[in-house]
Formats: sequence, C-alpha cells, structure tokens
Amino acid sequence: MTDTGRAPRALLFDVQGTATDFHSTVCGEAARISGGRHRGVDWAEFVGRWRAEYFTVLKSAKGDRDNWITVHSVYRDALARLLAEYGITDFSAPEREDLALAWQRLAPWPDVVPGLARLKDRFVLATLSNADVSAVVNISKRGRLPWDAVFAAEMAGVFKPDPVVYQMAARYLGLDPAEIMMVACHKYDIKAAGALGFQTAFVARPLEFGVHGQVDVSYDDEFDINARDFLDLADQLGC
Amino acid sequence: MTDTGRAPRALLFDVQGTATDFHSTVCGEAARISGGRHRGVDWAEFVGRWRAEYFTVLKSAKGDRDNWITVHSVYRDALARLLAEYGITDFSAPEREDLALAWQRLAPWPDVVPGLARLKDRFVLATLSNADVSAVVNISKRGRLPWDAVFAAEMAGVFKPDPVVYQMAARYLGLDPAEIMMVACHKYDIKAAGALGFQTAFVARPLEFGVHGQVDVSYDDEFDINARDFLDLADQLGC
Repeated sequence: MTDTGRAPRALLFDVQGTATDFHSTVCGEAARISGGRHRGVDWAEFVGRWRAEYFTVLKSAKGDRDNWITVHSVYRDALARLLAEYGITDFSAPEREDLALAWQRLAPWPDVVPGLARLKDRFVLATLSNADVSAVVNISKRGRLPWDAVFAAEMAGVFKPDPVVYQMAARYLGLDPAEIMMVACHKYDIKAAGALGFQTAFVARPLEFGVHGQVDVSYDDEFDINARDFLDLADQLGC
Repeated sequence: MTDTGRAPRALLFDVQGTATDFHSTVCGEAARISGGRHRGVDWAEFVGRWRAEYFTVLKSAKGDRDNWITVHSVYRDALARLLAEYGITDFSAPEREDLALAWQRLAPWPDVVPGLARLKDRFVLATLSNADVSAVVNISKRGRLPWDAVFAAEMAGVFKPDPVVYQMAARYLGLDPAEIMMVACHKYDIKAAGALGFQTAFVARPLEFGVHGQVDVSYDDEFDINARDFLDLADQLGC
C-alpha cells in the first residue's frame, strides 16, 4: 500500500456515486412525483442527462467563496431546462423543488453502512463531496452514515478536482496528505488527490448510472487499493 | 420557546466547557505527565490560568483565514509561558506537546452522550466550536459524540462571538437562524447567536473550572431554554 506502505489515519469519501446510489434514488423519486403522468419518459436517461448537466456547470464554475452557487441551485436550474426539453410542463413548482431535493435524499449502497461501521473503529472517516454541506448532512442523517466529519467543496470555495479542496481537508484533519486516503468511484477524483500525495482507493460502482450505464470499473495499479465495495475496502485495510 | 414557539430543526453545540469537561481532563493529564515531579503545583489553578490565556489570545486575534493561527498553537505557546512562570523546567519537548494535546482529548460530561443520543433522532446536531477542526474531530471520536456535522471557527476564519461564525453554520445547514438553536454554557456565546436570530439554550456547567471555580450558572429568561445538562435539554425539547 503506497510507497511507504503506511496505513492511513483518515479516509475521505466521495458521496454522490461512491457512497450513495443517486441513479436509483433520483429515478425512483422522479417516477413517484410524476405519478404516472409521463409514461413515455425514460427516467434513467433523464437522470443521466441531469447528472451530466451538473458536471458541465461544475467544470465551468469559478471559485467564489463569497458568492457561492449552491449545488442545489445547479440541479434545480438544470431540471428546469430538462423538463422543458422533454416537454414536461405539468410539474408544479413544489413538485420541481421536491424532485431537485431528491439529490439530498440519496440512499447509500447496501455495503456502505456496514463497511463504514467496520472502518470507523480504526480510522477517522469524513466526506469530501462536491455536494452542498446541507445535502451531505441530509443524506448522511437519512442514511445513518457515521462520519466523524463532513467536509465539502462549499467550505473551500472551489469544486473537486481543484487541489484546494483536498488540501483543505488535510489541514482540517491536521494530517499530512500521505496519512489520508481518498476513496471514490470516480478516477478523476482520486487521481487529483493522488497527485497531491494522498493515498487512493478506487471503489467500483458498476451500477452508478443504472443497469445500462457506461461506467469505468477497471482496476488500476496506479491506485493504492482497488475494491469491489466498502466491505472489500474494510477487508483490504485489515478491519 | 422563542417568539414564534417553533421547535428548532438543528442544534449547534459549543464543545470546550459545554460538551466536555476540560478542567478534569487537563488537570488529570498534567498530573499524569508531571508524574509526581511537581507536588507543590496547584494544577487546578494552572489550568484555569491556561484557559484564561487562551481567551486573551482569542479576543485579540484578527481573522485571517489564509494565515490561520491554530488553537493548538495558542495552547502550546501559553503553556510555555506558564511553565516558565511556575518554574517548571523539566518537562521535555514531547511532554509539553503531550500536555498541549490534552485539549484534544477532552472527556464529555456524563450527560452528553446519552443526551445527544436522544436529541439525534429529532434534530441535526453539529458543533460550533472555537477549537481547531482537528481537535473537535479528535475529541468527538474519542468520546463517541454523535454529531451530524463538525463546524468550527477555523472554517470561518474568525472566532466566536464574531457573527460570521454563526452565519456560516446557518448557511452550511441551509437553514434560517430562527430554525437553529445554539447551545452553550457561556452566555457570551448564546447571546451573540441570539442577537442574530438564533434560538438559544443555556446549559449550566457549575464544575467548568473545578469545585472551586467561579462560574455563572444563573438561569435567564433571555434564553429560550435554561437546562441543567443535556438530558434536561432533551426533556425540554420533548425528546
């Protein structure tokens, strides 16, 4: 494990996709709120495009801590565009808000709570998410995710993979990057952390975009750990 | 409870003094590290003066998020001054560091873990501490304090009672101040929050400075709640 072979003292986790199954949650919430009104809509495709819009906005976002654009507003605005494009005109304003807030109700993957419970005895566990702090808090409380701390891009004023986000987490933990392992299913995320000296764990999430989604789940020696899920991660870290 | 009588959605807790017994912890650690070498030293007085030095430094601190002075360094520097003044010259460098880090090992008051467990079912629970983020994380992990989030002055770049600290917590929670209750045994802390529209809970900690300490434990109608401890707080909030 890493050049030094040292066990980490803290683990940082991506939330949307790595710890939680946004595809199932948001598709389910869309179908629930739609209530059978839009039977022709492919909600899996809809949610995939919604998530892609989020990435497009985040990539072009300029860091501005004092005029921070919440991720909730990013999802809300992207939803309005997509609903118009799909010709869905009968969602009321409260229904739109309810659906946008589905991103704050993401359900954890089945392995996450038992995996974190095992990891928590040995390591400090914290989030490092691009989602709003409030979203991470709401998701975590709903899913009973036992973090020791919640860190998010909002606290840094820039989004991952900006180095400032990872460096902020190390400073807040009072640890060197080499003592911290970044855990994510997105390779751009752990590669950015790895470039700064963090340890890295790739967790495969083949269903991130549903059963028909295209996801890179290939293991890579570049990462300190490649894991099937959080239970496998706990196994490999000796918990 | 408050003008509107609405129950809060989140509770923010002071940590050093309100949730944890720094006096007993730090006195005990000083005696342990001293190992009987300094039998004439009144460690209760020593710790009281150490804490007072911390307050003096924090009051004069200028907010500077990019050149943040850690509270650990404040305690460490104050310790060096006090040891010199007390004529204690035989503490090694590792012993001094160990003692300064006692502030990151503060034990919770006996009512805190059971009280928080009851409150956690109904409310979002977060810290709002002047201690370093790493200190709050270490204290919380050691004491198994079940926070939903850890917020600290370090994240705001200024210390309580600066309004920016409380406003940061409200923004991160995605709530209005009126939906949040600040809980502390220090009246300056809850008064500052109350002036910004937060609900307030005063928790009496008569032993904050030990059995001979001078502490203001008087209840005041100015606060939405006056409580004996966290169990009484849970009772009054209907948990």
